[in-house]
Amino acid sequence: MKLYFSPASPFARKVLVVAHEAGMADRIEILGSKASPVATDMTIAASNPLGQVPSVLLPDGQPLHDSRVICEYLDSLAGAGLFPAGEARWPVLTLQSLADGILDAALLARYETALRPEPLRWKAWEDGQMRKIQRGLDQLDAEAGGFVDRVDIATIAIGCALGYLDFRFPHFDWRGGRDRLDAWYAGFAQRPSMQATQPKG
Amino acid sequence: MKLYFSPASPFARKVLVVAHEAGMADRIEILGSKASPVATDMTIAASNPLGQVPSVLLPDGQPLHDSRVICEYLDSLAGAGLFPAGEARWPVLTLQSLADGILDAALLARYETALRPEPLRWKAWEDGQMRKIQRGLDQLDAEAGGFVDRVDIATIAIGCALGYLDFRFPHFDWRGGRDRLDAWYAGFAQRPSMQATQPKG
Repeated sequence: MKLYFSPASPFARKVLVVAHEAGMADRIEILGSKASPVATDMTIAASNPLGQVPSVLLPDGQPLHDSRVICEYLDSLAGAGLFPAGEARWPVLTLQSLADGILDAALLARYETALRPEPLRWKAWEDGQMRKIQRGLDQLDAEAGGFVDRVDIATIAIGCALGYLDFRFPHFDWRGGRDRLDAWYAGFAQRPSMQATQPKG
Repeated sequence: MKLYFSPASPFARKVLVVAHEAGMADRIEILGSKASPVATDMTIAASNPLGQVPSVLLPDGQPLHDSRVICEYLDSLAGAGLFPAGEARWPVLTLQSLADGILDAALLARYETALRPEPLRWKAWEDGQMRKIQRGLDQLDAEAGGFVDRVDIATIAIGCALGYLDFRFPHFDWRGGRDRLDAWYAGFAQRPSMQATQPKG
């Protein structure tokens, strides 16, 4: 299968981390892209009208998106168990949603401060996104005792979210006052799947 | 279970439509909310740090979010089959992702033009969101022949997306040149689940 990818996209990274953890990385052909919210990459848009990464094209031409769908597809194909079944499914998917929501807020804060022309920036918008991130991180820190030795779609999404904060918000001290989350991430970030997929600007 | 809800939120509507279609609507206690990207509703944030609707609190206090997770949970509880298993699952989830992406773009366009102070608005941002919506609608129109008599998480998400465009973008003629999508929606919008959940400002 073909994956439209950007090395700076945290949602694209999620897909690659899942591919590595599920032993599927060598089944994926990576295609470069120029996705941006203000300039469409029409190569992506031909199969995904949203023009976003990550997007997959299966060998028969069928498109798959977004990251949640692609990750679950890869997990299902490999039988890797990163998406639990039964009662365990819902807290794991809710935690993925929290990590994805932190990333959505981080991307909007990044667009506000790096893409939008300076005179058009709105501090209240940026502040609203950063408060979401702060509250989300507090919640993750409170739960981090349960993350140890756990590799599933929730911990992968959390790892990608924290990696994105280090990458794009180097002066934002997400570790301050969050020792449990910091300690967990220090170990998780050493996994080969995370090392092989570090973001690049 | 308790549902934090806003009658203007299209993602919250998705949850209620699923609840109606799955015969679960009477199991849900609806709680009002004041979710906004620039002013946090701390009542929601107590269980969902993102402070967004829809969010659910289960009777044991366990939180569930976001709309995709809650919809799949309700479907699973009722055995309603709105989320197919097997090979049929991936195109349905990809279509849900397209409808959700249209909604994400519509919400960002709405925040840009109705929430952000006028001197800080950026036309290129609004245009980028509207182009996503236009391309997404073209794709839905091309596929609309396959939507007829189909009630699943994809057609529900599409119905909620089109309903939101009618609600918040009344001067945006999404029907123009999209006769198949228009004809399908005219019927789908008459379902009791859609009639019972019409958006309110």
